[in-house]
Amino acid sequence: MSLKTVICVLWAVCVGHTEGIQHGPNIIIMLMDDMGWGDLGVFGEPSKETPNLDVMAAQGMLFPNFYTANPLCSPSRAALLTGRLPVRNGFYTTNAHARNAYTPQEIVGGISQDEILLPELLKKKDYVSKIIGKWHLGHRSQYLPLKHGFDEWFGSPNCHFGPYNNSVRPNIPVYNNSEMTGRYYEEFEINVKTGESNLTQIYLKEGLDFISQQATAQRPFFLYWAPDATHSPVYASERFLGKSQRGRYGDAVMELDDSIGQILAHLVSLGIHNNTLVFFTSDNGAAVMSGAHQSGSNGPFLCGKETTFEGGMREPAIAWWPGRIPAGTVSYQLASVMDLFSTSLSVTGVLPPDDRVIDGLDLSPVLFNNSLLDSRPIFYYRGNQMMAVRIGQYKVHYWTWSNSWEEYNTGINFCPGQEVPGVTTHTQEEHTMQPLIFHLGQDPGERYPISVQSEEYRDVHRQVTAVVEQHQKDLIPGMPQLNMCDLAVMNWSPPGCEQLGKCLKAPESNPWKCVWPH
Amino acid sequence: MSLKTVICVLWAVCVGHTEGIQHGPNIIIMLMDDMGWGDLGVFGEPSKETPNLDVMAAQGMLFPNFYTANPLCSPSRAALLTGRLPVRNGFYTTNAHARNAYTPQEIVGGISQDEILLPELLKKKDYVSKIIGKWHLGHRSQYLPLKHGFDEWFGSPNCHFGPYNNSVRPNIPVYNNSEMTGRYYEEFEINVKTGESNLTQIYLKEGLDFISQQATAQRPFFLYWAPDATHSPVYASERFLGKSQRGRYGDAVMELDDSIGQILAHLVSLGIHNNTLVFFTSDNGAAVMSGAHQSGSNGPFLCGKETTFEGGMREPAIAWWPGRIPAGTVSYQLASVMDLFSTSLSVTGVLPPDDRVIDGLDLSPVLFNNSLLDSRPIFYYRGNQMMAVRIGQYKVHYWTWSNSWEEYNTGINFCPGQEVPGVTTHTQEEHTMQPLIFHLGQDPGERYPISVQSEEYRDVHRQVTAVVEQHQKDLIPGMPQLNMCDLAVMNWSPPGCEQLGKCLKAPESNPWKCVWPH
Repeated sequence: MSLKTVICVLWAVCVGHTEGIQHGPNIIIMLMDDMGWGDLGVFGEPSKETPNLDVMAAQGMLFPNFYTANPLCSPSRAALLTGRLPVRNGFYTTNAHARNAYTPQEIVGGISQDEILLPELLKKKDYVSKIIGKWHLGHRSQYLPLKHGFDEWFGSPNCHFGPYNNSVRPNIPVYNNSEMTGRYYEEFEINVKTGESNLTQIYLKEGLDFISQQATAQRPFFLYWAPDATHSPVYASERFLGKSQRGRYGDAVMELDDSIGQILAHLVSLGIHNNTLVFFTSDNGAAVMSGAHQSGSNGPFLCGKETTFEGGMREPAIAWWPGRIPAGTVSYQLASVMDLFSTSLSVTGVLPPDDRVIDGLDLSPVLFNNSLLDSRPIFYYRGNQMMAVRIGQYKVHYWTWSNSWEEYNTGINFCPGQEVPGVTTHTQEEHTMQPLIFHLGQDPGERYPISVQSEEYRDVHRQVTAVVEQHQKDLIPGMPQLNMCDLAVMNWSPPGCEQLGKCLKAPESNPWKCVWPH
Repeated sequence: MSLKTVICVLWAVCVGHTEGIQHGPNIIIMLMDDMGWGDLGVFGEPSKETPNLDVMAAQGMLFPNFYTANPLCSPSRAALLTGRLPVRNGFYTTNAHARNAYTPQEIVGGISQDEILLPELLKKKDYVSKIIGKWHLGHRSQYLPLKHGFDEWFGSPNCHFGPYNNSVRPNIPVYNNSEMTGRYYEEFEINVKTGESNLTQIYLKEGLDFISQQATAQRPFFLYWAPDATHSPVYASERFLGKSQRGRYGDAVMELDDSIGQILAHLVSLGIHNNTLVFFTSDNGAAVMSGAHQSGSNGPFLCGKETTFEGGMREPAIAWWPGRIPAGTVSYQLASVMDLFSTSLSVTGVLPPDDRVIDGLDLSPVLFNNSLLDSRPIFYYRGNQMMAVRIGQYKVHYWTWSNSWEEYNTGINFCPGQEVPGVTTHTQEEHTMQPLIFHLGQDPGERYPISVQSEEYRDVHRQVTAVVEQHQKDLIPGMPQLNMCDLAVMNWSPPGCEQLGKCLKAPESNPWKCVWPH
């Protein structure tokens, strides 16, 4: 993009129509799937293929220190919508120590009825809420989005793995609101060989249409736009396939970037950009274990998805609200996906629940005044175990683990090309008595542990210990929802299958404790 | 920086005075020392502390695929000024296989009389040339800058190591033109404990004054601005110390960034920005072996300085010439420091020497029209050995080596935190018959070699083999200049030492073949 383009867009932003706004601001959360911190041009991806996101940053606020709550999709998404750590909202497992759990279609559980999700709260102010794309908080009927505050949904409850044979395993359904409208690899094609699929275009159109409808109706809206083209198997539509310098994964990124540009331009053309907070981020680090063709970049950070190293949990993040968020700013605030919950409530004037711990912070002072909030910890959980904590520039590892030797020896590598002795360990290593401490400013790659004999180490250790002890003292773990699996609960006969003639026969129920290998 | 600032600066650029230009364009090459690709905000350094370089990129052209000619300082600088690979211009060693050699003060050799340097050629068009900072092409009198085309010099012939005791080893002199004006750690203080030194401020003032003088005199000029604050021991002046989120190295970067902002603003204020090509880059990758406090970032790339992996040789690069180079552009051209020689000649209308091979390309079509030149190879040499070659997106390794087990076992690590089995080897591994091939677009970190059984491998191998065979057939290696060492040639009595009373007694001459361990 040229600077001229930036100026032109800015000009459009400035002269956009803003009359007739009578309701609270719209909220759009754009959540990418397995996209890494280093995948954006503005975060140094060498092929610089995200001009729209780079312009979004130039018009908004960039967050280099933004985190997810878990290095895996389902718990991360549950944290975003509840404002609570997975260990509180139940999106974790106790089947084994420090295991990442999620919602494959054999999972029995899902988001608890006791949790209060962002769209439920926004109803108090008459917001219309839609989720487009991947839900991932449970696919059984009681767990679906329209049972948890969303008014509309177009997308899927699970990952787009497949194709399956529909006898031992059904293909994943795609929903339109409360009923399925087809299945992946059937009505919704994904060619895993060529990587071609129109899904991102469908999700884009769904998003543009929803925005138009609410703008016309002058209703405030919450759009949770969660496309999954960058999750393996990655895909892109024909127009983008082969366009990237970095292969199919890059094609998917370019299509998402283009779509985001279209959504922002649509807000401007409708004149509602000055009344819409847009936040872009990703659910976890790039899935570097999937190899060069199917995964993105975590930039200078260590390892990726599934791990509690920076590559697993630091996310690209941009906030955009022309006229409210100062353009071209960088915020060093330590922030989290859970803050999107609290911030959305704050800007819409809704009070958060007062009967539970909320881990999110209201980032309004950060967004509107570029303030820095008081030092807040970032907790790095893997399943039921707090593995590490960051306070200020310091990250303290109490447990380290990449994956097991058994997995590693079969070729699954969560840290390809990277190895820090004693850090990227293949056995679960406890360091509670003498944690590993890194200064992430000086050492973003977590390569050089601070000497345990230094004064710096002792000072940091003392300070962080107090915070961790308080956290653990106050912590009441939620009921774990991701412990049980059963082939009978898979997507055999989702609601709406009858009309489509797509109901399948489920096997007998035979539940077991899910095995989470890492 | 805010976008507002960018727009304001742009405005100043647009309305700047441009009357009275009667001569060819001025050339400024800003060459950093050991600064890594990933050290710029625009290339993803997480603390985003280079606002002036980021604005320079927004006003100019960014090169994500820019290379040095050697992963070490002296050969890289010799290549820049001669437009020729070190193996041609003599800046290499044959003492052992594939060894990095440079110009410590015991080196006997330096830049050959037979080489023609850029400032010598620019004299044909009456350019005034000045080097500020580090020379590094030999410190004995016949090798100094004023013997090789520069009209002025303020700086030093060697690295700022020390302090020395002046009996077994003299401190390094600082020259003002053809005579020394003091020594490091004596008249020119560097506090290795606190990291404080005013040297960057001195180099900045020298640069601003030189520009002012030439502008007043309406003479075309070539300024080679080569500060060394980011070379270990890194330093910054008081105003910048402690300011960076990433420690002392970051302080040095922030001061350099500030200085570059001042130089560009000075060009604008003098109204000569529309007649000045400014090129920013670095001499080699970040010296990651020096640890978190003394080294920078190579972003997503493998290893660093001293190696022929991307971290050793890919450099940050920005071209700036308001009104000529389109603002806010990214060029994917594979380019090299040697191109700065050819491009400078081209834009000033000087013909290159026709009696020798010039490895540099004229980048004018790239700079002015954002064209891509025909596929050109990038050769990765380590001493006398071509280790790898890049053509298009493909990099082919014929030899791999990080450093020896002996060095590694003493704690010297050229790839800290990184290890790619069979790639970051600790013995020199030859792969000539079946080279390792990476697709740098999909795999910038050189982690996933392409399968030797794939068609892609065979196609690339065939194509690259032809280029390499041609290169090797045509190659006439220069006389190696970096083979001999002698304590007697150290900086005991540089010209000008008498007036200062700073002449020291040299030992007897006792030359030996220098030992280059890596």
